[in-house]
Amino acid sequence: MPVLRPRTMPGVLELLPEEQRLFAAMLATVRAGFERFGFAPIETPAIEYSDILLTKQGGETERQVYFVTPTGALDRGGALPELALRFDLTVPLARYVAEHEHDLVFPFRRYQIQRVYRGERPQRGRFREFYQCDADVVGKDRLGLHHDAEMIAVIHTVLRDLGLGTFRVTLNHRKLLRGILTGFGIAEDERQAAVLREIDKLDKRSPEEVRAALRGGDCALGDQAAGGILTVLDARSTGYTETTTLLASLGLNNPLANEGREELTTVLTTAHALGVPPETVGVDLAIARGLDYYTGTVFETRLLDQPGIGSIASGGRYENLAGHYTRSHLPGVGFSIGATRLYWQLREAKLLPALPVITTEVLVALTGEEDRANALDIARELRAHGWRVETVLETGKLAAQFKRADRLGIRWVVLTGGEERTTASVSLKDLKNGEQRRLPRKDLLPYLQEQHRKSPRASGDADEAGTI
Amino acid sequence: MPVLRPRTMPGVLELLPEEQRLFAAMLATVRAGFERFGFAPIETPAIEYSDILLTKQGGETERQVYFVTPTGALDRGGALPELALRFDLTVPLARYVAEHEHDLVFPFRRYQIQRVYRGERPQRGRFREFYQCDADVVGKDRLGLHHDAEMIAVIHTVLRDLGLGTFRVTLNHRKLLRGILTGFGIAEDERQAAVLREIDKLDKRSPEEVRAALRGGDCALGDQAAGGILTVLDARSTGYTETTTLLASLGLNNPLANEGREELTTVLTTAHALGVPPETVGVDLAIARGLDYYTGTVFETRLLDQPGIGSIASGGRYENLAGHYTRSHLPGVGFSIGATRLYWQLREAKLLPALPVITTEVLVALTGEEDRANALDIARELRAHGWRVETVLETGKLAAQFKRADRLGIRWVVLTGGEERTTASVSLKDLKNGEQRRLPRKDLLPYLQEQHRKSPRASGDADEAGTI
Repeated sequence: MPVLRPRTMPGVLELLPEEQRLFAAMLATVRAGFERFGFAPIETPAIEYSDILLTKQGGETERQVYFVTPTGALDRGGALPELALRFDLTVPLARYVAEHEHDLVFPFRRYQIQRVYRGERPQRGRFREFYQCDADVVGKDRLGLHHDAEMIAVIHTVLRDLGLGTFRVTLNHRKLLRGILTGFGIAEDERQAAVLREIDKLDKRSPEEVRAALRGGDCALGDQAAGGILTVLDARSTGYTETTTLLASLGLNNPLANEGREELTTVLTTAHALGVPPETVGVDLAIARGLDYYTGTVFETRLLDQPGIGSIASGGRYENLAGHYTRSHLPGVGFSIGATRLYWQLREAKLLPALPVITTEVLVALTGEEDRANALDIARELRAHGWRVETVLETGKLAAQFKRADRLGIRWVVLTGGEERTTASVSLKDLKNGEQRRLPRKDLLPYLQEQHRKSPRASGDADEAGTI
Repeated sequence: MPVLRPRTMPGVLELLPEEQRLFAAMLATVRAGFERFGFAPIETPAIEYSDILLTKQGGETERQVYFVTPTGALDRGGALPELALRFDLTVPLARYVAEHEHDLVFPFRRYQIQRVYRGERPQRGRFREFYQCDADVVGKDRLGLHHDAEMIAVIHTVLRDLGLGTFRVTLNHRKLLRGILTGFGIAEDERQAAVLREIDKLDKRSPEEVRAALRGGDCALGDQAAGGILTVLDARSTGYTETTTLLASLGLNNPLANEGREELTTVLTTAHALGVPPETVGVDLAIARGLDYYTGTVFETRLLDQPGIGSIASGGRYENLAGHYTRSHLPGVGFSIGATRLYWQLREAKLLPALPVITTEVLVALTGEEDRANALDIARELRAHGWRVETVLETGKLAAQFKRADRLGIRWVVLTGGEERTTASVSLKDLKNGEQRRLPRKDLLPYLQEQHRKSPRASGDADEAGTI
């Protein structure tokens, strides 16, 4: 039989089991953080109706959508297929909230950790199938600004628990930005949007390039306005005091800008009250967040020692989440962590965090058929008390079994053969320090439990760690 | 703006948050069971190359595949799209093992809990996007029969922990079946397969219908052979003693059947040694498991009080998992739980299990702006000690806040306003019993921790429960 080369498409990050354990620990940490702030889990199907997915954004997004076709429906003669894969978790959230509006409790606090799909051109570090971890709160008719601040606290908790080093959540405000543009005579929505799109590129292009772009195309600014805007938006700060000073110093002369400034100040005050340390917040007036649906607070988060990684947790406020699917007014605020890309970047930088991973804890070895019943019974007893135990099921050399335990990261190896069998005892080897001891068979479980009390093992209890 | 009706395609099970919590608890229980037996987690992409997915099975499966097409590649003029969504977790496992063969430790024990996709005709209780929970062990060159037995023990552990009532894992063996058919003069592979396909329908059709089918079509059996086969395959048993008697009583007259009987006996003996209780195992010679790749042990699992639900955990042994992708010989054994369908059926039957779900534990109420800083600080302190806490962020009537806690299943409500504020105290209401008590502010955390010690809360520590 000819053999087909086993492979996956580019843009997919498939992990080996030991990598998967760490990635799972990262997702579990994020999930525990979301839950500690009272967010409820939801999941939505990967496959949605195309018309539902494609109302919101056109252009770029639509070019990246993966369409889905059952065999019988191939070749539709040019019509767009009825189904497609979600490309983010925000559009499905909007559809979910509109569809289940009457069954939900508002403000609706949900988190969602699932894969999304984008038909991007393959490129190093760009993924076509990847995890997003989203937390959002959606209000009915209204949603206070304190919720925006809480998102900063959630990000702070999650990133601290992930142990990725120092980081900063940098905020801005779309009303403040638009007010500033209005002050420069740019008042039309579309022209403001065009200018914001260019501003958003300031972290990837030089100020000169952005300035040139502001003078051409849809922006068509005069040289003085372009320069003036770039000068104003160059402002940034760290911490509550410096930020308050910065915001107060802005010479704003229109209501929109003032409203933005006041809202941003409220958000920062509440973040402070929620215990977010000053060094982890700041303001950067050049942050625009390209997505059109943001209307108030916007924010990005960067690892201070790894600026090249870019924002790892971004989001903001949208005044009307689900306007395409319901006449209800549903304002919201939320953010997203691109977990697959984050994991990949940390791995590339050799900065993967040391989270407690769930591994098998005990290997019960087997060297002779005459020990099988005893070995199986030991495994059964340990499992009954919550231990994660692999039993070697085929007799073989002990050296190979130790090697297996070592490769799989299993700490304890239980030996039952030879002299142990005749004396109703077991030997227990601790691969962490190489020590081996002989114990009466009946003392094995109590001994392991005592060791466990001394250094607790990971068991999904990551959410017991100290946090915000 | 016209509003689009929010909806998902038929064949999708989307859950409300409180349902999602229970479904997540079910998956967590399955996962903990898999981990307690030393299985390692893997995940594979939902999107695979079509040629990889479609090597193994033709016909039915291919008609149910969802193909995936990026916008730019629509209209390929009749050619099959390059990409498709996985329809099970076994083909991706085969591809994964072949692709990463040199990085894996054999026997490779993996579990995988992910969604799969099938373009089925919509039908009540049939899903197009659903979770499967698979555990498999794959050997290199060889894999002992004790692994088959361990799968029975894993199923026993998982189903007992799920708390779904009494159940039974019913086994059979393809070699035994094929040997019996050979004894009836049906020796050719294809004719055996045709007969097994009809036998497999015995749980859905009457013996008369199956008998008629055996006489026609690809089977073309004489009336006597058809009747004889149905009589032999009518044998079933429960428990180790009865099963041993049954197997011994079969008058087998060819080596293949004898080999099957011996293997099945070994599997049952090991399952017994692993602590699987007699009432949860049995043999049913009419179980065939249609999938062509099974070559040895096959098994199904039924809830004894809910026979209508059908098999909820099925699997078996395959002699060569990844022959399409590698020349290595990789035998395996494993099983699958269709979690979405199981959840749906239990919900329909009003038999959803009472698993510990992860909910928010504390709601910190807010009735006046003057209490905000104190309320946020209380929430911060409780979270720092692992509590899951929602803070009400908009001042409002207390009655509405109590109602919210009640609807969201939150047990404790903390009140900080009024007299509490002036006396540095808080009031704590336990919605479980309606009791409310006043505490000094500093005693809140110790009091909650004391209550927690009395009745531990769910925190992903389901795997601490007593198990096999």
